[in-house]
Formats: sequence, structure tokens, C-alpha cells
Amino acid sequence: MKINKNYANVAESYLFSDIAKRVENFTKNNPDKKVIKMGIGDVTLPLCDAVIKKMHSAVDEMSKKETFKGYGPEQGYAFLRNSIKDYYKSHNVELDENEIFVSDGAKSDLGNILDLFDKDNVCLVPDPVYPVYVDTNVMTGRKIVFMNANEDNGFLPLPDKNVKCDIIYICSPNNPTGAVYNYEQLKMWVDYALEVGAVILFDSAYEAFVEDDLPRSIFEIDGAKKCAVEFCSFSKTAGFTGTRCGYTVVPKTLEFDGMNLNKMWLRRQTTKFNGVPYIVQAGASAVFTKEGQAQIKEALSYYKENARVMAKTLEDMGIWFTGGKNSPYIWLKCPNNMKSWDFFDLLLEKANVVGTPGAGFGKNGEGFFRLTAFGDKENTKTAMERIKSISFS
Amino acid sequence: MKINKNYANVAESYLFSDIAKRVENFTKNNPDKKVIKMGIGDVTLPLCDAVIKKMHSAVDEMSKKETFKGYGPEQGYAFLRNSIKDYYKSHNVELDENEIFVSDGAKSDLGNILDLFDKDNVCLVPDPVYPVYVDTNVMTGRKIVFMNANEDNGFLPLPDKNVKCDIIYICSPNNPTGAVYNYEQLKMWVDYALEVGAVILFDSAYEAFVEDDLPRSIFEIDGAKKCAVEFCSFSKTAGFTGTRCGYTVVPKTLEFDGMNLNKMWLRRQTTKFNGVPYIVQAGASAVFTKEGQAQIKEALSYYKENARVMAKTLEDMGIWFTGGKNSPYIWLKCPNNMKSWDFFDLLLEKANVVGTPGAGFGKNGEGFFRLTAFGDKENTKTAMERIKSISFS
Repeated sequence: MKINKNYANVAESYLFSDIAKRVENFTKNNPDKKVIKMGIGDVTLPLCDAVIKKMHSAVDEMSKKETFKGYGPEQGYAFLRNSIKDYYKSHNVELDENEIFVSDGAKSDLGNILDLFDKDNVCLVPDPVYPVYVDTNVMTGRKIVFMNANEDNGFLPLPDKNVKCDIIYICSPNNPTGAVYNYEQLKMWVDYALEVGAVILFDSAYEAFVEDDLPRSIFEIDGAKKCAVEFCSFSKTAGFTGTRCGYTVVPKTLEFDGMNLNKMWLRRQTTKFNGVPYIVQAGASAVFTKEGQAQIKEALSYYKENARVMAKTLEDMGIWFTGGKNSPYIWLKCPNNMKSWDFFDLLLEKANVVGTPGAGFGKNGEGFFRLTAFGDKENTKTAMERIKSISFS
Repeated sequence: MKINKNYANVAESYLFSDIAKRVENFTKNNPDKKVIKMGIGDVTLPLCDAVIKKMHSAVDEMSKKETFKGYGPEQGYAFLRNSIKDYYKSHNVELDENEIFVSDGAKSDLGNILDLFDKDNVCLVPDPVYPVYVDTNVMTGRKIVFMNANEDNGFLPLPDKNVKCDIIYICSPNNPTGAVYNYEQLKMWVDYALEVGAVILFDSAYEAFVEDDLPRSIFEIDGAKKCAVEFCSFSKTAGFTGTRCGYTVVPKTLEFDGMNLNKMWLRRQTTKFNGVPYIVQAGASAVFTKEGQAQIKEALSYYKENARVMAKTLEDMGIWFTGGKNSPYIWLKCPNNMKSWDFFDLLLEKANVVGTPGAGFGKNGEGFFRLTAFGDKENTKTAMERIKSISFS
């Protein structure tokens, strides 16, 4: 039996285990210090009432023969797909319900969509980047070309006609940088993809944080339905990181090599997936009710206020950063040209605050640092006061 | 962008849509007839009380900041993996908890495990077969060799040393035939796999139906930990078809080409999966409590009694079949050498009973027919009385 040898080429990531080790050491040596964690991109507020109520009633349905649900449609229940369709409509994007596929999260679908593409394609991936875009392609042996995201382009690289590629990854609002493409910039990407015949894999997991006049979906851009697949999630929008639900939009008009991607993805999902738990889909549908929308907006405002406090602190300190608005992430330039890990150690030592060294997200991340706004409000304020009191000179 | 052209070779399955169409036609022309459906392999009894209670309490945990669960371990929570480990121990199989991976169902993992294998492997698949084994490999362009399961071998084919293969699919108790390998037969498969260096993908989704002295896990066989991966599910064991949870066992001792499959699968899952919903894992863990075990056994007994009634009827009629014991499926030989679809039409017409034509599962299924024991008790009895009253001469 021949193994897929490409797995040997997947780099082991020690980023978060390295962080954990340094924090553990610090805590052991400083048991009296209260460490505040702003490193991991996980939510902390509970599920909203509307979702909780709906899930309780869905559990009850599963307890009675008359209302019990067995196998559901692999693509997701129509009640949820229709709600997602209406949600898109509220952003002026018209979709057919059969273009929407309910998933167990953006991470799964971002990996699994690659099933549809030949190994012999070149991927264009920004650096710094969410490591999953890279690893999933290394596992198949696809060639990866990086595009530089840096201070010069505000961590929003634009198409370079000299670079040949077939599969383009765009995440906006971006993880880890918090940077967001505007309409004009995203249009440049769509035009470029259409011109070279590439597919755009658009990760919109953080769209709910957009508040300015910026695109929340790539399908707000003319032509995108002929070149893009969009991945979205309830994880950050409604606190579903441990509840697992997302959705992927594959337009019916998406064709490559004479084959229809919507039909291929349906075939993939019906063959290798059995849908998301009924209880979870019921809960997700409550996110779109009037009550649910009001409640998730409250939680989003809580995180956004954290981001605002963080951004204000950095502004006051004269530290360069992206994100902090329209995003739960702040991507800051380490003061005094410090390296990412040196800044990590300094912040832990002097402010007892944990963040994520930018170097962990790619070579262009060196010298930068990520903080997340998903923490507790009081802790966030305290962390910022502590950072402000550090002398970086 | 180059598409994965292998998708063009995946056969469209019209089996269940063809069945639905014929039933719809019949119902339209015979509105007074009460049609009994014994075709689809989906459970009908609700989730047991222990699971329902545990899921309600898990939903409550998600409603409070102090007990809220964000991202969980991709491999599954330790509380569930330990319960699964103990369950295996009760069948005399010793596992390490890190050999157990909680999944959203056997179907997902049976497809996704192929990520670890090179395209250039030959798959050995029984005919008749659960179509997913075939389709997932056609999608990657792997060569498939079929082994004949038929009346002569009791639908339990044994290794043929003249056939070269790398990936072997075994499902026992089998879907669609209900046939179950004994210890000696399964040992022949393990020995063969070790000899030729193949991997066995063992689908044990129906193990909970085993009551005789037959293997429930391939790891009951010496040597299996060096050649097999096992896929199991709560779907049929505890009525989780719409709740989605299963588990995959990848032994730490499984190595091919100098690479460790357990480590590769962990890498695959941490990269392309974010775990099963906490609420679902909590519910699944209740299956292993004393209360839960008693309750699921009650449901299993209900289905087993249906199977017994069905088997008794066919015995009385002198119709040859496999399954009906240690399995929720009955695989019968159509009387008078009828073809599968002719028997389907006759059964629908004369007994108003819907089953699944064996021809839908492969060429060796022609002339056979599948009935499932997952229906209502009274309906099953009525269906059997109706079938008994048909004159097949």
C-alpha cells in the first residue's frame, strides 16, 4: 500500500504549543501574576438565548417518534438554507438556495473543496496566512506561491499579472491581520481571476464584524459568481466555535474545464458527508430570527468595543497596526523593530499579556503581533492599561 | 484552473430516486392502499432518555459564560474517547485513547481516510456494496477490483491470492446483505492483508446488532492492529443518523512506507476538521452510561425483533436469505429467479411493501432484494403477513 508521501512535507506547527509552554513557565515562576490571554481566536461569550431555546426544542423533537429526525439532506435543511439566502439578500446578494451548502465549519469545507481540483494547479496564498490554506495544499502536493502582505500594502496585496496561479485564497476581513479589502480592491481580484481563469476561495468567516462600507461577501462584486466560492461560518458571528456550523456558497454559474462546480460539490458532499446535526441546524436558524439577530449583535458589539479599546491604546502609543475595526483582530508592528517572539516575551514579562507572534503566520509576519478582541471586557481594559504603562524606549 | 476530471467518472445513482418515483406513481393510482416502506436504512425510534437529558444539560452549559465550550480538541473530548475505549475493553479490545478519533459519522471518515493514501493503489471492494466505497475512490481515480459476494459464498467472500490489491473494504455485519464474518474468516483477511501489505478499512457500523459469538471489531483478530482501520458509528447503535457522531480507530502500530497512519490521520483531522459539536459529544457519551446502555439495548431489541419476524416469514416461505440475525438487514433471493426490479414492482403491487432492489448495489445484487428492520413493529408484522399471502408460483 502506497502512502500519500506529501504528508511528510507538511510542516509541524509548534506555534500554539510553544506559546503554551512559555506561558506555563512564566506562571510557574510568577504564581502571583494574573496572566491575560489575548492569543487564541476563540470566542468567550455563550450562545445567545434564541439559539439556546431553539436547540432545547430541537432536542425535545429528537425525543419523540413523531418529531424525530433521522438522516437529513446532506446539503442542509431547506429552513436553514432559506434563512441564509435571505441574509445574503439583505446585503444585496441574490442566491439560489441550491447554491448554499450547510457545513460543519469553514475549516472543513476550505480543505475539502480541494477534492474538486486537480493536483496540478498553482495556489496563490498571502503571507502572513491562516496556516490551513497552506497545509491542505501541501498534503496534496500542490505548488504554492506566496504573495507578500506587508506594511507597504497595508497587508492587502493586489493581483500581480506576472504571477501565474490557478487557485487564489482571499480572507477578508483577514485572519491574522484584520485588514479588509474594499470594493475596488476586491473587484481587481475578481477581474484578475476571470482573466487568468483562476478560482477564488473567499473566506468570509469574519464578515459579521464589518461595519464600514466594505464588502461582506465576494458576491457583492460583479463577475464573482463566475470565479469564486465563498466560505462562511457561525463560529465568530454567533459563537459557534464549539457548536460547529458554517456554509459554503458555490454558484451554479461556476464552470471550469466544462465541469460545473456546484454539481461536483453536491456530489462530493452527498458521497463523503451526511450533513450537520439537526439540533445544530435548528440552533443556527435561530441566529436569523429578529430576536437572534438582536442578540448576536449585542455579542458582536461587546467584541467590537474590546477592539476599539485596543485600537485606541495603540493609537495613543503611536504603534502601527491593521484591523481593530471591522475585525476582531489587531495586527500590530512590534515597537522598536523588535522581533515577534521577543515582543511576546516582553509583553508576557512586563504586562502579563499573551498574544500571538506574527512570525507564526509566515515570513512577512516577523516583527508583527496579533491580539484578539474575543476576551473579557475588563481583562481587555486591564491588559491595555498594562501595555500602555510599558516603556518601549 | 484544472478540474479533478475523475468526477466525470462517478456514476450517478438513481436507485433511491427511482424507488421514490415508482412509489409515488403507485400511491397516485392507489390512494386507498397503505404502503409500508422497508427500503431505506434509517432508524425510526427517537433518541433515548439518557442522551436527551445529557444534551439538554449540554445546551444549558453553552448558555452560560462559565460553562460555555468554544473550540474543542479536533480528535474529540477525552470524556467520550475514554468511554469508547472502555466500550472496546468490554469486547476484549485494548486501545489507547489516542487511537480513537471522534467523527461526525462513518461516512465522512471512510471518504476522508483516502487522503492518506496514494492515488496509485488498487482497491478491493465486495460486490454488492455500499456505493460510497466505490464512489470515493472513483473520485480520486483509483483502480477498483471487485470481489464476488454471492449465494455460493453466503455473501462473505474470502481472500483470493491471485488478486493484487492495496486497500481492502470489509463491512461486517454487512450492508446491504446482513452477512457477518466469523473469527476464522476475518483472521483469513487479516493474514492476507499482512502478507500482501494491504490496509483493511473495516466498517463496523452495525456491530451493535451482533448477538452470536461473532467479531464486533476487527481488532478482536490478532495482527489487525498492524493492517486495519476501523470505522464505527452511533447512527444505528443509538439512533444518531440525524445527530451525527461516530468514531474511527487508527492503531498507533499502523505503518506503511515508513509513515505512521495514526500521526497522519491526526494531522489530517487537525488541519481539515474542527471536531464534533460539544452537545453531540455529550449526548454520545450518555450512550455508554448504565442507563444509556439499557435504553439503547431496548431500541436495538425492538429492531432485532422486527428482523426475527421477517426472517421467520422468509423461512416459512422457503425463501433463501442472509442477515436477519446479528444485523438489521435481510437480503433475500427473489422467488422464481425474478429480477430485482421485477420483484420490487410485484411486492409494491401485491403487498404494498417497498424494499430495495439488490441490483442497485452491484451486479451480484441482481436477483436479490434488501429489506430493513428499522420500521415500526406493527407495520413490519403487517408487511410480512401481506408478503406471506402472495402466491409466487
